[in-house]
Amino acid sequence: MRPYEHGGNVYDYEGELIDFSSNINPLGMPKCVFDIVKKADLTRYPDIKYRNLKESIAQYTGISRESIIVGNGASELIHLFVRTFKVKRPIIPSPSFLEYERATCVNGGEPICFRLEEEEGFKLNLGDLISRLQYGDSLIVGNPNNPTGQVISADEATDLLKAADALNMPVMIDEAFIEFVKECKNYESLSLVEKYDNLFVVRATTKFFGMPGLRLGYGIGNPNLIERLDSNKEPWTVNAFADLVGREIFKDSSYIEESRMYINNEIDYMLSALNKIDNLVAFDTKVNFLLLKSKYAKASLIKERLVERGILIRDASNFKYLDDRFFRVAVKRREENERLIEALKGIMP
Amino acid sequence: MRPYEHGGNVYDYEGELIDFSSNINPLGMPKCVFDIVKKADLTRYPDIKYRNLKESIAQYTGISRESIIVGNGASELIHLFVRTFKVKRPIIPSPSFLEYERATCVNGGEPICFRLEEEEGFKLNLGDLISRLQYGDSLIVGNPNNPTGQVISADEATDLLKAADALNMPVMIDEAFIEFVKECKNYESLSLVEKYDNLFVVRATTKFFGMPGLRLGYGIGNPNLIERLDSNKEPWTVNAFADLVGREIFKDSSYIEESRMYINNEIDYMLSALNKIDNLVAFDTKVNFLLLKSKYAKASLIKERLVERGILIRDASNFKYLDDRFFRVAVKRREENERLIEALKGIMP
Repeated sequence: MRPYEHGGNVYDYEGELIDFSSNINPLGMPKCVFDIVKKADLTRYPDIKYRNLKESIAQYTGISRESIIVGNGASELIHLFVRTFKVKRPIIPSPSFLEYERATCVNGGEPICFRLEEEEGFKLNLGDLISRLQYGDSLIVGNPNNPTGQVISADEATDLLKAADALNMPVMIDEAFIEFVKECKNYESLSLVEKYDNLFVVRATTKFFGMPGLRLGYGIGNPNLIERLDSNKEPWTVNAFADLVGREIFKDSSYIEESRMYINNEIDYMLSALNKIDNLVAFDTKVNFLLLKSKYAKASLIKERLVERGILIRDASNFKYLDDRFFRVAVKRREENERLIEALKGIMP
Repeated sequence: MRPYEHGGNVYDYEGELIDFSSNINPLGMPKCVFDIVKKADLTRYPDIKYRNLKESIAQYTGISRESIIVGNGASELIHLFVRTFKVKRPIIPSPSFLEYERATCVNGGEPICFRLEEEEGFKLNLGDLISRLQYGDSLIVGNPNNPTGQVISADEATDLLKAADALNMPVMIDEAFIEFVKECKNYESLSLVEKYDNLFVVRATTKFFGMPGLRLGYGIGNPNLIERLDSNKEPWTVNAFADLVGREIFKDSSYIEESRMYINNEIDYMLSALNKIDNLVAFDTKVNFLLLKSKYAKASLIKERLVERGILIRDASNFKYLDDRFFRVAVKRREENERLIEALKGIMP
């Protein structure tokens, strides 16, 4: 299983590019980070139990420490879930984050992709999905889903969990982007872990806290589920920097609020501006990225033209069920978003 | 499989302790590290291919970039090797680092431990080991071996590899401590990967470069073997700090030389002083830790008494084939080593 082509791969290009290919908070990291980083003690192992870090996540999420596991970004936890529950035939509403499929294949399985329909704006058809659950051994849902930007509500998640529970099926909900969503409390599944011991919720500081270089993720589940994951986990995968940073950033509620507001403002602006461009469709989104479809030109060509203009986008044609005219762009700062919009106007045939 | 009790767990204790339980370079990190750390860009993903980092390791080891994989400390690479080669019945000369056994068990296997004999000072009996290889599906050797401090030469490794190759058996040699060894070039197996495509050599910056908090390891193997490991690997497990630090520290040859000299001086001093203490045996070692055996008192009791004196040691009784009178201490700075020796003199019955 080759590593997939992900977004954020600016290293393949020479010169400076505005990176619309990776979906990172454009406001940058919380300001406290650089001070914290200086205090990291590299000459000691991190606490193998990450007690202080988990306490900080417990405060932030309102979930008890025994229900928390930490990892090297969301990706470690995704692979860990797949391995621990011997996931071989997960149902994955798709298109979706490629690492779900890759983790399954690395584990010797093959996903059952549940098609999200373009005509329905890639919204999840809940009844349909529930009726198909029986064909899989597990369920993996991105919420919000990447690259479609669509969400399910906590009520919808509850219906899914009930159905999966009846089939004795583990469920992973990936909430890596959830904090970007307006009124995200209505969409998050964290509190459901108390009632549903088949649920594992994955989160990260990568996207919302703007630190893909830090590698800090966490997962929430029933204490029994967390213990099972812990017993399969590699030790010390969160390094001293990530440990320390994670103890502080979740307290920064003004950064959190400001980021969410900024993004939602920009989403409205970009949706409206992009949909005015000829031969281009921008799909509705709840988060800091937009899925776009060109009516005629290939995404690879659009990408090439934009690179010439100093802009890197994510060709989305390697996502399941998307053809070669789909691409994805991040929501960035206003002046950058304007540059993207102008550039697209200039090149769209 | 519960996480094992490792050394370095100072977090279980209150107050300041001199940590002899984890085997870290007492000279601290190379001085360049703090400057480098400030330059880390957390707002970008690390290069998923870690091109610059691998180039730096290539320069240091003299091995080409295609033969290198990087990971979150040695431990990620140990688990990755076990998973990728579906290791179920590895032969492990023991006592040895517990994570080899744990990785095997997490993977649904069970190791075949090859007993290192106390009467032989825990030296590996090569002929004996080779005659038993046929009973396993793979071979995992710590070189230097933890907690015994013993080594095998590159010639001995060659004999092992020949025998394993004939059985079509993958071999992992863990060289996490190799740089501490006097004339370490005679003991390292790196150059053997060209001839033996069943060999994977694991290394880390954790021990010798004094940075267990950084989480940076690397592995060396034939390009085909590395490609196979890469295809099973989780992405971005080395964070931006570790990536950047790893590009610089290997160039610091005076730190490397000085550290090796300091340690070997202290080994001689400690061996001689510890063996003069009544009812205590210090086993010969080539590296920055010593295995000790108390004639009468339990290691747990010695540990307790030393904690009262501000010193933390590693109770070694959970290592295979070691009874409850074994413990391990790191080689630290002279004044700390003196404190340990004085404290042991005071409490040994």
